[in-house]
Amino acid sequence: MSESRPRVQLTRGVPPVESFPIAQLAECAAAVLHEYGDVVLQYAPVRGFAPLRALLAREAGVDDDRVIVGQGSLQLQDFCARYLLGTGSVVYVEEPSYDRALTIIRRAGGQLVGFPLEEDGPDIDAVEARLESGERPKYFYVIPDFQNPSGAVLSLEKRQRLATLARAYEFWIVEDVPYRRLRYRGEEYPTLFELAPDRVIQMSSYSKLVSPGMRVGYVIAPASLAGPLAKMAEDTYIGPSYLNQAIIYEYIRRGWLEPNIARLCELYEPRLGATLSALEQHLADLATWQRPDGGFFVGVTLRFEVSADELLERARAANLILTDGRGFFPGCDVENFVRIPFCALTPEEINEGVVRLAEVLRGLVQAV
Amino acid sequence: MSESRPRVQLTRGVPPVESFPIAQLAECAAAVLHEYGDVVLQYAPVRGFAPLRALLAREAGVDDDRVIVGQGSLQLQDFCARYLLGTGSVVYVEEPSYDRALTIIRRAGGQLVGFPLEEDGPDIDAVEARLESGERPKYFYVIPDFQNPSGAVLSLEKRQRLATLARAYEFWIVEDVPYRRLRYRGEEYPTLFELAPDRVIQMSSYSKLVSPGMRVGYVIAPASLAGPLAKMAEDTYIGPSYLNQAIIYEYIRRGWLEPNIARLCELYEPRLGATLSALEQHLADLATWQRPDGGFFVGVTLRFEVSADELLERARAANLILTDGRGFFPGCDVENFVRIPFCALTPEEINEGVVRLAEVLRGLVQAV
Repeated sequence: MSESRPRVQLTRGVPPVESFPIAQLAECAAAVLHEYGDVVLQYAPVRGFAPLRALLAREAGVDDDRVIVGQGSLQLQDFCARYLLGTGSVVYVEEPSYDRALTIIRRAGGQLVGFPLEEDGPDIDAVEARLESGERPKYFYVIPDFQNPSGAVLSLEKRQRLATLARAYEFWIVEDVPYRRLRYRGEEYPTLFELAPDRVIQMSSYSKLVSPGMRVGYVIAPASLAGPLAKMAEDTYIGPSYLNQAIIYEYIRRGWLEPNIARLCELYEPRLGATLSALEQHLADLATWQRPDGGFFVGVTLRFEVSADELLERARAANLILTDGRGFFPGCDVENFVRIPFCALTPEEINEGVVRLAEVLRGLVQAV
Repeated sequence: MSESRPRVQLTRGVPPVESFPIAQLAECAAAVLHEYGDVVLQYAPVRGFAPLRALLAREAGVDDDRVIVGQGSLQLQDFCARYLLGTGSVVYVEEPSYDRALTIIRRAGGQLVGFPLEEDGPDIDAVEARLESGERPKYFYVIPDFQNPSGAVLSLEKRQRLATLARAYEFWIVEDVPYRRLRYRGEEYPTLFELAPDRVIQMSSYSKLVSPGMRVGYVIAPASLAGPLAKMAEDTYIGPSYLNQAIIYEYIRRGWLEPNIARLCELYEPRLGATLSALEQHLADLATWQRPDGGFFVGVTLRFEVSADELLERARAANLILTDGRGFFPGCDVENFVRIPFCALTPEEINEGVVRLAEVLRGLVQAV
């Protein structure tokens, strides 16, 4: 039966093609090549296209020097990890967390310590206990808004506690906020950067707000770290592509970013709604999940133990392609987690995906 | 006296702004966004824009899988170093060599062993002697055509010997050829890749042929290395900017690359000529230098010992900005080397720079 149904892809968190403002970006590309062609086609200072940095610095209330715009934010994280970590350096993370970030930390020699995600963010009592026992992490990697992969939002109280702990125990917080602006309902909390600008390295990008293919991400770093991170970037790629950064700047300058974000929220909200409804309807007895007000993901935790290999295999047989949930856990040892990225699918496709997931899970439960 | 003269900048090897085909690149940008907008604005496979990879693979006579197009070639070198080297791994280099490449090798834990450059490339007898003594380098980093910083070209005989040694002693050759197509006269030799495709990792980029700001560089790797390098790239930046790569592809597809290279050769040849004439006229008694038939640089070795700090300082007082020559040497211990990058200066500026350099050097000789 499985082969006949169309494939449903619940893998990476990519925006749908229909979300890209292609014509506007083409206009911006032409404009910047005409206006700044000599600048964007040349080698250029490594911290990035100055007008875009100035705009981000103004928004954050920091000196321009503290803003580094690079080729996607993941690589800027790689610079942080390579600069801050040595073999065995402890890094705190939410559990689950963004699989690519975990890989980067491991590759730099970091030793991951995970803190289970609750509905309102990681277990801060557990964090405090480890700090009190004497452990000193180099940093805590957190995605406070619509976390990848769970969808969780860090509560105001936990934000405040985390900021206080970072100051008291002198560790950095690497705050990754690519989904923050994609809030479909409800009120936002202050960022960790706003609460503790002296201890927070904030990362974000335009991948989810304009286009991932542009590869424009940025970091706002404490003054003591911006210089070493810029040096790390220069020693790695000399300078970033100013063309891409200038296109993004032009897009913002023309006033197109805010309407685009509004358009994306309108596009994605029904997809989130469809995900939550389908889960409620088909998975209530099989799993629990977060109920985010935005972002790209709903993380689903099964109420029973499974073999991830078997789950992936059975899903594939039903033409349902899942990401291996183990990758989101520091120890790669949790098998009963499924991430549902809902933005790139229509409500109908989402419903079909959840129906098929429920069918696969019921098969697994019966097999136990 | 010094303050009144205009600044002459003999620092990094950047192309002149007038070399950039701005209008053509703007046309290509518009075309690719219209034609491939959905592809170039999305996350995409890490090895790069498929049509450009196919074109490069066809030229090199290899499978497409062996071509990785990244964001400038330096970063691809970083992936090679991080993948191939551990703490203490031996890497052979020409002495002098490209300062940024040396930094990348050191940062990855590599231990640099330099082989003095002769007129026809590094001293291969010395290489052979070290190999015979039992040393096993992971790779030899070579810039065989119009070497940075010296301008040297590796002779055919030395290319053949190096290829034979790489096979016999099983080390890789990282062959960096960004200047190869910028030959203003004379005949080119085969690349090391052509001589030993099984042992050579070849790097190049469009930075010197179209625009450095595009950040489009590539590696052609042996089949056993292409996979791990691609994984390293994916774990670092997910995927490269396809927009830039598609623009370069479109530029080539329209038949604009070859005429552009011809135009660059016409622009740069008189600049090389002016450099060699000015050196002959003003520095013959003070220094020796390579007489390249192309590229971006002429490396000048002073006939006397100086303090590099004093040289840089006195040059600066004469409003002549030099790069610290020590950076091109593995031990940073050679003080009497000056790199002259000639492409971004007019013949008049070059002459003025060399006149001023001679004046500074005469002052230093007298001070001794």
